[in-house]
Amino acid sequence: MSQSFDIAVVGATGTVGETLVQILEERDFPVANLHLLASSESAGHSVPFRGKNVRVREVDEFDFSKVQLVFFAAGPAVTLSFAPRATAAGCALIDLSGALPAEQAPQVVPEANSSVLAGLKKPFQVSSPSASATTLAVVLAPLRDVLDLQRVTVTASLAVSAQGREAVTELARQTAELLNVRPLEPRFFDRQMAFNLLAQVGTPDAQGHTLLEKRLVRELREVMAQPLLKISATCVQAPVFFGDSFSVTLQSTKAIDLAAVNAALEAAPGVELVEAGDYPTPVGDAVGQDVVYVGRVRSGVDDPTELDLWLTSDNVRKGAALNAVQVAELLIKDLV
Amino acid sequence: MSQSFDIAVVGATGTVGETLVQILEERDFPVANLHLLASSESAGHSVPFRGKNVRVREVDEFDFSKVQLVFFAAGPAVTLSFAPRATAAGCALIDLSGALPAEQAPQVVPEANSSVLAGLKKPFQVSSPSASATTLAVVLAPLRDVLDLQRVTVTASLAVSAQGREAVTELARQTAELLNVRPLEPRFFDRQMAFNLLAQVGTPDAQGHTLLEKRLVRELREVMAQPLLKISATCVQAPVFFGDSFSVTLQSTKAIDLAAVNAALEAAPGVELVEAGDYPTPVGDAVGQDVVYVGRVRSGVDDPTELDLWLTSDNVRKGAALNAVQVAELLIKDLV
Repeated sequence: MSQSFDIAVVGATGTVGETLVQILEERDFPVANLHLLASSESAGHSVPFRGKNVRVREVDEFDFSKVQLVFFAAGPAVTLSFAPRATAAGCALIDLSGALPAEQAPQVVPEANSSVLAGLKKPFQVSSPSASATTLAVVLAPLRDVLDLQRVTVTASLAVSAQGREAVTELARQTAELLNVRPLEPRFFDRQMAFNLLAQVGTPDAQGHTLLEKRLVRELREVMAQPLLKISATCVQAPVFFGDSFSVTLQSTKAIDLAAVNAALEAAPGVELVEAGDYPTPVGDAVGQDVVYVGRVRSGVDDPTELDLWLTSDNVRKGAALNAVQVAELLIKDLV
Repeated sequence: MSQSFDIAVVGATGTVGETLVQILEERDFPVANLHLLASSESAGHSVPFRGKNVRVREVDEFDFSKVQLVFFAAGPAVTLSFAPRATAAGCALIDLSGALPAEQAPQVVPEANSSVLAGLKKPFQVSSPSASATTLAVVLAPLRDVLDLQRVTVTASLAVSAQGREAVTELARQTAELLNVRPLEPRFFDRQMAFNLLAQVGTPDAQGHTLLEKRLVRELREVMAQPLLKISATCVQAPVFFGDSFSVTLQSTKAIDLAAVNAALEAAPGVELVEAGDYPTPVGDAVGQDVVYVGRVRSGVDDPTELDLWLTSDNVRKGAALNAVQVAELLIKDLV
C-alpha cells in the first residue's frame, strides 16, 4: 500500500501515547502527517518520531478534519469530550479509554475478533480494550476450538505503570526509603506499595467490584463473543514497574486435551508459549515485547475439565498501544 | 493448669523455629525445660527465651526421652530421620515439614478440625500443614455451614521468607542493585525477584504442579474433611518479604448468602474481617499478627453461586509457628 494517512494521537505525552507513537514508527505505519495532542498542561512538550521532535499541541484547539484517523490514549473524560468532534469531522477513531459504549465503538483485539471490523460503518469507531482483557483475549481466543469454555477465574497482578509515571516514581521512592530504613509516607498509593500487594485497584462499587474488574469481565465477554461466559476477576496492584501477570483457571464442559491446547497456543498469533517446566516473568520476558507469554499450562490436580495458565504481557505495549496500532493497520485497508 | 512440660524444638535457628520459641514465651506455654536443637552447622548458636539465651545443640546427639513434646520445624529429611526416635522414646511430636503421611500424623488446624486430636493414640503425632493450607483452612472452615463448597480456586502470592533468611537477604540485595542501576546477577532465585513475579515455586512434576501446590490441595482437603473438594492452586513467589496473600474464588451449589458469610467470618476464631470497601495487605496488616485477615468479600459479577475473597496472613507466624503451638496447647491437655 502506498497510500498514507494523516494521524492524530490524543494523550501523546502519557505512557501509552508515547509508546503508541514509537510503535507507529517501528511498524512503519503509513503516516503522512502526525499530530500529537494533549491537554493544555502537556502541550508544548515534544515527542520523538522518525528522528524529529514533534511538538505536542492542545487538543482543544485541534481541527479534526485535518486527519483521517485519531487515537484516543488519554482518560475517559477526554474521549467523551472530543470523540464527537472527531466523528463529526469524518475522522476514524480508536479509543483506548474504555469510555465509549459497545454499540458505538466495539472492543477489538485483532487476534480474537477482527471480523467485527467488517461490519463497521464510516466514520469508524473502535475501542481497544483494557490491557487485562486484551491479554486474556489473545490467549483465550485460540483455545475456543479446543475447549468448551464455561468459566474463567483470573487474578491479575498489575504493574504500577498502568497508573502512569507518578506511580512508577512512587514505587521507586518508597522502595529506596525502606531500604534506607527511613520512615515511609505513602503519596500516590493509599498505603505502602513497596514489598507489598494491594488487593484493590480503584474504588469498589456497592457489590465490591472495581471498575477495572468490571471492564475486564465486560470487555472479555464482548471480544470472545460469549456474553454469558462466567468470569471471576480480581485485579491486584503488584510492586512491579512494567508487565502484567495473570493466573488463569479455565473450566470446560469436557475433559481438556492438553496436547491440543499446546498446539493451539503454539500456532496462535500474538502468543509465545514457553517450554513445559519453565514459566515467563514480566521483567524477564514480557516487557518490551509484542506477544503475550504463556506458561505453566496444566490440567487440574485431579480435574481434567480444568486448565490452568500463567500469562504475562507488557501492559503499556501489547496490552494497550500495540493493540490499538494493530487495529489501525486493519482499519486503514478500508479507510481509503 | 499447673503442669509443665519439657519441650524440644528441632530446627530452632530457622525462621519458623525461632518464631515458635518466641510464641511459646508470649503465650506462656507451660515449658519446664526447653531444648533447642539443630543440625551440626547451627549448633552452638543461641536463641533467646524468657530473658535467657538458650544454647542450640545437635539434634543427632539428643536423647528424646528427656522431653514429652517435640516440634519438628526443620526440613522433611530431618523429620524423617528423627521422628522415629522421638516416637520410640514415647515423645509426642508436632511436625511442620509435611514429611509424615496423614495416617501417621494427621494435619491439624485448631480452628478447623481440632476434633481429630481426640482420636489420636499415644505417643501423639500431628502435622501442622503448610502456611497456605493453614491460612485457607482457618477461613474456609467457618464457611462450611453457610455454603455448599464445591470448588476452590486459589492464587497464592507467597513471601520470600518462606524460603528462609537467604531469600530475604537476596530480595533486599537485588532491589538495592536495581535501584542503584547496577547489573543484576541473581543468586538465590533462578532469575530477577525484585520488582518481578515468579510463577513457580520449586520444580513442577510431569503434570506441571509443584510440591507446594500439591501440598496445598492435599492438606486443605484433609483439614476440611472434604477428600473430593475440587481445588486449583497456583503458588507464585512475590517480591514481598513477609506475609502471604491469597486470591480465592469459591463455588457453591446454591446462591451464596453474603450476610451469612460475613456473619460467619465475623464470628470465626483466628479471622479478622476488614470493613467492606477496605482490603488487608501483608505488610500493613498480617505481619506479626495471630489472625488471618479477610477482605474483598463479594459474589461473582453476575454469578450468585460464586464467592471471592482476599486473605493475607503472616506465613511464618500464623501460617506455621503459631498453628503448631495452638495444636500443642490442645495436645498437652491429654499429655499428662
